[in-house]
Amino acid sequence: MARHLLKLEGLDEAHLTSLLDRAAGFIPAARGEAEAPASLRGRLVAQLFFEDSTRTRLSFEAATARLGGRSLSLSGVGSSASKGETFLDTALNVDALGVDAMVVRSSISGGADLLARNVRCAVINAGDGRREHPTQGLLDCLTIREAFGKISGVKVAIVGDIANSRVARSAIHSLTTLGASVRLVGPPTLLPRSFAQIAARHDLVSITHDLDSILPELDVIMMLRVQLERAAGGGIAADYREHYGLTHRRALRLPAHCIVMHPGPVNRGVEVDDDVADDGRRSQILRQVTHGVAVRMAVLEESVGRTDRVR
Amino acid sequence: MARHLLKLEGLDEAHLTSLLDRAAGFIPAARGEAEAPASLRGRLVAQLFFEDSTRTRLSFEAATARLGGRSLSLSGVGSSASKGETFLDTALNVDALGVDAMVVRSSISGGADLLARNVRCAVINAGDGRREHPTQGLLDCLTIREAFGKISGVKVAIVGDIANSRVARSAIHSLTTLGASVRLVGPPTLLPRSFAQIAARHDLVSITHDLDSILPELDVIMMLRVQLERAAGGGIAADYREHYGLTHRRALRLPAHCIVMHPGPVNRGVEVDDDVADDGRRSQILRQVTHGVAVRMAVLEESVGRTDRVR
Amino acid sequence: MARHLLKLEGLDEAHLTSLLDRAAGFIPAARGEAEAPASLRGRLVAQLFFEDSTRTRLSFEAATARLGGRSLSLSGVGSSASKGETFLDTALNVDALGVDAMVVRSSISGGADLLARNVRCAVINAGDGRREHPTQGLLDCLTIREAFGKISGVKVAIVGDIANSRVARSAIHSLTTLGASVRLVGPPTLLPRSFAQIAARHDLVSITHDLDSILPELDVIMMLRVQLERAAGGGIAADYREHYGLTHRRALRLPAHCIVMHPGPVNRGVEVDDDVADDGRRSQILRQVTHGVAVRMAVLEESVGRTDRVR
Repeated sequence: MARHLLKLEGLDEAHLTSLLDRAAGFIPAARGEAEAPASLRGRLVAQLFFEDSTRTRLSFEAATARLGGRSLSLSGVGSSASKGETFLDTALNVDALGVDAMVVRSSISGGADLLARNVRCAVINAGDGRREHPTQGLLDCLTIREAFGKISGVKVAIVGDIANSRVARSAIHSLTTLGASVRLVGPPTLLPRSFAQIAARHDLVSITHDLDSILPELDVIMMLRVQLERAAGGGIAADYREHYGLTHRRALRLPAHCIVMHPGPVNRGVEVDDDVADDGRRSQILRQVTHGVAVRMAVLEESVGRTDRVR
Repeated sequence: MARHLLKLEGLDEAHLTSLLDRAAGFIPAARGEAEAPASLRGRLVAQLFFEDSTRTRLSFEAATARLGGRSLSLSGVGSSASKGETFLDTALNVDALGVDAMVVRSSISGGADLLARNVRCAVINAGDGRREHPTQGLLDCLTIREAFGKISGVKVAIVGDIANSRVARSAIHSLTTLGASVRLVGPPTLLPRSFAQIAARHDLVSITHDLDSILPELDVIMMLRVQLERAAGGGIAADYREHYGLTHRRALRLPAHCIVMHPGPVNRGVEVDDDVADDGRRSQILRQVTHGVAVRMAVLEESVGRTDRVR
Repeated sequence: MARHLLKLEGLDEAHLTSLLDRAAGFIPAARGEAEAPASLRGRLVAQLFFEDSTRTRLSFEAATARLGGRSLSLSGVGSSASKGETFLDTALNVDALGVDAMVVRSSISGGADLLARNVRCAVINAGDGRREHPTQGLLDCLTIREAFGKISGVKVAIVGDIANSRVARSAIHSLTTLGASVRLVGPPTLLPRSFAQIAARHDLVSITHDLDSILPELDVIMMLRVQLERAAGGGIAADYREHYGLTHRRALRLPAHCIVMHPGPVNRGVEVDDDVADDGRRSQILRQVTHGVAVRMAVLEESVGRTDRVR
């Protein structure tokens, strides 16, 4: 009965489109400008964040509340790949509290799948290690569709730490399934040779280490967050900005219609310059936040919504 | 559409009175003894506390819940005047979650105004640096009105760290607008010369450094909290108590009808002696807490209440 | 009007049975498989945890939500027996927020009683020092009743740190009142001579230091959590397991029908071996978690439920 959302890899075009359609319809309710159906009335959703992420947790809590559901929130539970057992034990206990769904964020790649195999309730992956962050991928798709009226044929660059990014992975799966072409951009350290093989298998995926060369042909430039906490030396940020930052100068070389996206929070002056992040015409950063609530409403409704109330 | 509550300075008598009337009507519901209207049904209120304040946050959460609304709570977000950008960025992101209102506490004087100029949702100031704490001012007014049936003509002393107190500032604005006379009392370090100028412009405000001389003429004595964490030496507390504490001896010199107020939490044995704080006849300290919920219900309803349900 | 739940000591058979009956009826709703009555609609329940206990707090929050009530949660408020005044002050302030009930966990033995004498709202003890943890006792009873269809005549061993365990104390009171026989098992340091006197007064209570000798005669073996944080040396855990751990070998000597219980979280490999904890036939550990929600629903409904909605 329970329908999990573990990853976007493997979701077909019809399913993705149906989720995006439902999410698009929820945008006014997500903004508090329309009434949402009470399709989660009586439903209990555990927000189980082994890794702290206030923004994503609040987005899921907002989505749950907008649909009339209740949240049980566990933040900073503390876990790691080496504590796999504690991770599962905690989830089993939360499941035994009788929750209808659990939204799970952890540093364990494949963690959401592990839980889905072991718990009774629905599992929504809110980021599992380096693997996927499916609701982020969906909100990225929704943002592009809202901006251009379509996804198919849109040219998207994803720039930054591709190798370690679950955001990139979920975006790649969903965007290519929906027909966008995706250029992966980053330094060789963050975009290693193995990605060339992936690109070779995908018509719609290509890779480059040279951001400047592709700027004029983009419809969407999606900047990833630099994990400054992983970078040892102080010079990393300045160096990164020089080669891969979306600076004021680089933004001038983008087509007028090209939009700027970022999963947030932005390292201003590192991966995106201030004036680009705040450019009300180009920047979709805050719109992505709103779309995140709408997408999570659609996902939660699909997973545990009351069938007597919706559609 | 959104109506902010940023400060009491400048609010006229009619507006203050209307808020107090509505709050007075909410007292039974705030105590769980009557049903409140579901005027926040479907509304989402962010409780955005950059400075931790469990008491004020819980009071706003209780008010939100009593009216049928939902809270998204962010506590100890961590900010400072020097991180003004992060402060605004965080608030813009919370706004983009589609909340109907945000209750904001921060150490930035004028912080609530900054947000109100930049966000879409209603902003309720829950304390901004040294500036104002308007719902505290309103609950102080409500407590006096409940005790005496009126505010006009009531003689109030505010005692303590006037210079740094947003509680004092909000009380002064609202009480004088409603016709109370206010005596500011404190040591010259905490009640500097600039306040004499303010007093000179106000018919209803006067200042003194001598608490003992005015005790017999008071209707209300409002003790401010000593910021012990700011005081360096250990002798400060004892010294403060000697000159400005509401000791057992001083309380004996107050008129029988005089009430004692404090915004809490009380430093017992510093600004108020134990037996005075616990004197069920005089002390309004716990009643202020209850009135705080009623006042916040009135404020939230005015800001984001459903017009189809109320009045 | 308010009905507290402070301890199971002194609760008679009829009252216990009525709570268990109601809780048993709530099990499907606690699992999200049936609709619960909205008997806490409009009710505000403070979850006041002076000692952190995510599991118990979430269980009470789930119970509150399932019945349509709202929670105000204070976790890790920080207190100790020496700060008795702060403890009471905090509770008085929460009471003044107008909550209908407060669920209280603290390290102060008798803390819940202290609050019940001083506050207006209903008080539910969620563990007070070494004294009692009444909802845990009730969920233990419910689990035994669900497993055997009765409690009277069932042979229960409680194994571990009896002296310091509020879990043991609440279980002893309720199980013996309902006619179970209880064997207390532990090393002399954790099961001191004073318990022999208690046993001498109770027909149904006996004590032993030899776990192995009683295994074949048990219907229920309830393992307590070893407080590893109290144990100084590293050898304690291994030593404990050797004499009092429910190892794979010991479990083989239990009757086939004997169930294993533990209040959680389990120190795997210390008081219970992995395969015993995960034995789906014997182990009731996760079922206890579910029953905890059902029991707390019954307790909250009895304390502050709307009489117009229930029964």
